[in-house]
Amino acid sequence: MQTKIFLDENEMPKKWYNIQADLLTPLDPPLNPSTGEPIRPEDLSAIFPMELIKQEVTQKKWVPIPEEVLDVYKLWRPTPLYRAYRLEKALKTPAKIYYNWEGVSPPGSHKPNTAVAQAYYNMKEGIERISTETGAGQWGSALAFATSIFGLKCTVYMVRASYEQKPYRRIMMETWGAECFPSPTDRTEAGKMIRKKFPNTTGSLGIAISEAVEDAAKYENTNYSLGSVLNHVLLHQTIQGLECKKQFEIIDEYPDVIYGCVGGGSNFSGVFLPFMGDKLRGEHPDLQVVSCEPTACPTLTKGLYTYDFGDTAMLTPLLKMHTLGHDFIPPPIHAGGLRYHGDAPILCKLTKEGYMDAVAYHQNEVFKAAITFARTEGFLIAPETAHCVKATIDEALRCKETGEEKTILFANSGHGHFDLAAYDAYHEGKLVDYEYPAELIEKSLKALKNKT
Amino acid sequence: MQTKIFLDENEMPKKWYNIQADLLTPLDPPLNPSTGEPIRPEDLSAIFPMELIKQEVTQKKWVPIPEEVLDVYKLWRPTPLYRAYRLEKALKTPAKIYYNWEGVSPPGSHKPNTAVAQAYYNMKEGIERISTETGAGQWGSALAFATSIFGLKCTVYMVRASYEQKPYRRIMMETWGAECFPSPTDRTEAGKMIRKKFPNTTGSLGIAISEAVEDAAKYENTNYSLGSVLNHVLLHQTIQGLECKKQFEIIDEYPDVIYGCVGGGSNFSGVFLPFMGDKLRGEHPDLQVVSCEPTACPTLTKGLYTYDFGDTAMLTPLLKMHTLGHDFIPPPIHAGGLRYHGDAPILCKLTKEGYMDAVAYHQNEVFKAAITFARTEGFLIAPETAHCVKATIDEALRCKETGEEKTILFANSGHGHFDLAAYDAYHEGKLVDYEYPAELIEKSLKALKNKT
Repeated sequence: MQTKIFLDENEMPKKWYNIQADLLTPLDPPLNPSTGEPIRPEDLSAIFPMELIKQEVTQKKWVPIPEEVLDVYKLWRPTPLYRAYRLEKALKTPAKIYYNWEGVSPPGSHKPNTAVAQAYYNMKEGIERISTETGAGQWGSALAFATSIFGLKCTVYMVRASYEQKPYRRIMMETWGAECFPSPTDRTEAGKMIRKKFPNTTGSLGIAISEAVEDAAKYENTNYSLGSVLNHVLLHQTIQGLECKKQFEIIDEYPDVIYGCVGGGSNFSGVFLPFMGDKLRGEHPDLQVVSCEPTACPTLTKGLYTYDFGDTAMLTPLLKMHTLGHDFIPPPIHAGGLRYHGDAPILCKLTKEGYMDAVAYHQNEVFKAAITFARTEGFLIAPETAHCVKATIDEALRCKETGEEKTILFANSGHGHFDLAAYDAYHEGKLVDYEYPAELIEKSLKALKNKT
Repeated sequence: MQTKIFLDENEMPKKWYNIQADLLTPLDPPLNPSTGEPIRPEDLSAIFPMELIKQEVTQKKWVPIPEEVLDVYKLWRPTPLYRAYRLEKALKTPAKIYYNWEGVSPPGSHKPNTAVAQAYYNMKEGIERISTETGAGQWGSALAFATSIFGLKCTVYMVRASYEQKPYRRIMMETWGAECFPSPTDRTEAGKMIRKKFPNTTGSLGIAISEAVEDAAKYENTNYSLGSVLNHVLLHQTIQGLECKKQFEIIDEYPDVIYGCVGGGSNFSGVFLPFMGDKLRGEHPDLQVVSCEPTACPTLTKGLYTYDFGDTAMLTPLLKMHTLGHDFIPPPIHAGGLRYHGDAPILCKLTKEGYMDAVAYHQNEVFKAAITFARTEGFLIAPETAHCVKATIDEALRCKETGEEKTILFANSGHGHFDLAAYDAYHEGKLVDYEYPAELIEKSLKALKNKT
């Protein structure tokens, strides 16, 4: 039996897929918060390279992947498509379960698919340094890896609470040569202001974004980089789904349903968008696509579809998305990558228009699924990914009841080697199942309606 | 340019290679410590399954890999052979550098190559539980993974110092369903005795071995498992080198020199033995093979080639090997997997007879090499592996001087995701370069000569 479907390096897709070309109606544009008008390219050129600004709005269906980016991808791509025989057997399901495995990349997740592309375009346009923010460190370490490959400097503002409690991703970034500071810092006006006002603050992603953006705007040869949400990030991530499509062609299969976890939405979008194109064009009208999110941060299942800021400090353009309000601070679940108040506009539009669904889970049921996966398929996956493994197992068990031989694909975004403390908490029965924070959401959304 | 050479799953070797068939003179047999006579199969049957005892002594050149073991290997095998273009470019060397990458396995190293085989044979012979020892946890986690796949229970005695200071590998083991105890425990007579004598002891690998062996000997359906040194362990690991040979055939290359790190010697032996067979048969007489070890535990470069115990407590059979004496306790270097007083008898015999060489390095130069590797090839490797990366870089730089276009292969045994504290210590200039502990070695070897 064949467990992995591999592509040769020369079969790797040479172009990214742009769903904008297949959308039936165009995306709502990002708005300039001071004018309320659609943002212009020149508004972004202080912090992004022109090539990425163009990719953000292009309507071309295919964007060529530069040869130098393909060469770096080859350090871990094409990634294998797995058939999860052992999981199927343990569940006694007639369903066929597949997953693409992004844990083989040097930083251990899907993040470098865009980090490498972004570092490359910045290098090509003469940029010498990139600044960014990171929470627990997945994105910061991916950008540190990518910049080290292209000889750029990298400055990472890491949320102070994570910087102090979770040093391993910080050490990874430093090993790749990046500098990493606990945010808020005294290096920026935004940071200084917050420290003056709240001397004991442990920081937040919103503050870290403000610091990274200010850093990039202030220095001539420095740009800013974002690891999810934006259209060009999703574009780069489509390398995942394009590989999966080729791999399914080899075995003459096509998924009936695709599951993925959604924080900002870049991993899942990267996997499902190339298949969604088939659905939009009417080629696979019955394809189901389901986002999996935590009950503690239920953006797609409980959020409002409206314009909101990408950050807490209201510095970014307004994006049309499902949001819990930029003030919303979710409970401290272990899936740190899913604790974001909004989602990628492309994914939100497709959800709003009914092309895809969403479902939310509690921590304990999610970790239970991760343990089942580890004891059958071997790999210790990230808590984020475990959300869609939970959905996969539920669907496979439903198929067992009905006898359906469904083909299931889920997006396996990365390993959980730096999340073992969370596994330990689960083993010891110490994981808290946070209820939907209904009152917090209501308050935050009310504030949002008053502001926008 | 092609970065990785992959084999299809159906091209994976179906047999392990046994160097004993190609040795010009037979191995010196292990001796029973009480009689001084060669050990008999029945002496071992209380703690090992018969199939492994047979594999320990077989003279057959090829041992078929069971279908069920091949199916589990497919979760991560065949592993890729990498051409390290970026490292070559950074070093400006005309040498071609290749490495096989075992970090893609679920436990993140080469260890499951034998753990899976051992768990399988124990399961086939009706064993219900396997006990073992582990230091920092690489071997214990590999066996926990393997036993979970075959539905066996697993008991791991983990050196107390590591159990308390490095909880992550323990959590991995528990996630795969193993039970893990800080050794010495109160579960065994050996453990109780030590705790009574030294109430505050933080344990040692020697004590943990004694506990695991006692546990296995005491219970009917329980066996013991060892992760390195023994012939059957090296046999299982040859899957690595056999894959490399096929991959080199595809690109019509053959290594001029092979480097690997040596603790017990199973990873490196697994890679070089299939090539060494060619050398012994006169097909590639000029092949160089070089073991890389730490100056803090210089078994091959400073040890005595003689019979010694495998453990500190003198419970195991006597093995003919390079040893620093079973009393020798090496300085606390970060490459925990290389802190063993002896080496695999097969590797030692080949070294003694001049078929291969050895070299020793200090910690700081080794970590410097690991950083160079991370910033060119991306992957954060284990400190153990970094020893042979140091040798590879030195040789590549020598080739730059001489203009030689040598083909270098090194054994990349696994990732360093649980060794980031050591990387941090290096970044902060806190790594100690221990001198050859000459006096300690002398004392330990003197004691050995008096005992044996």
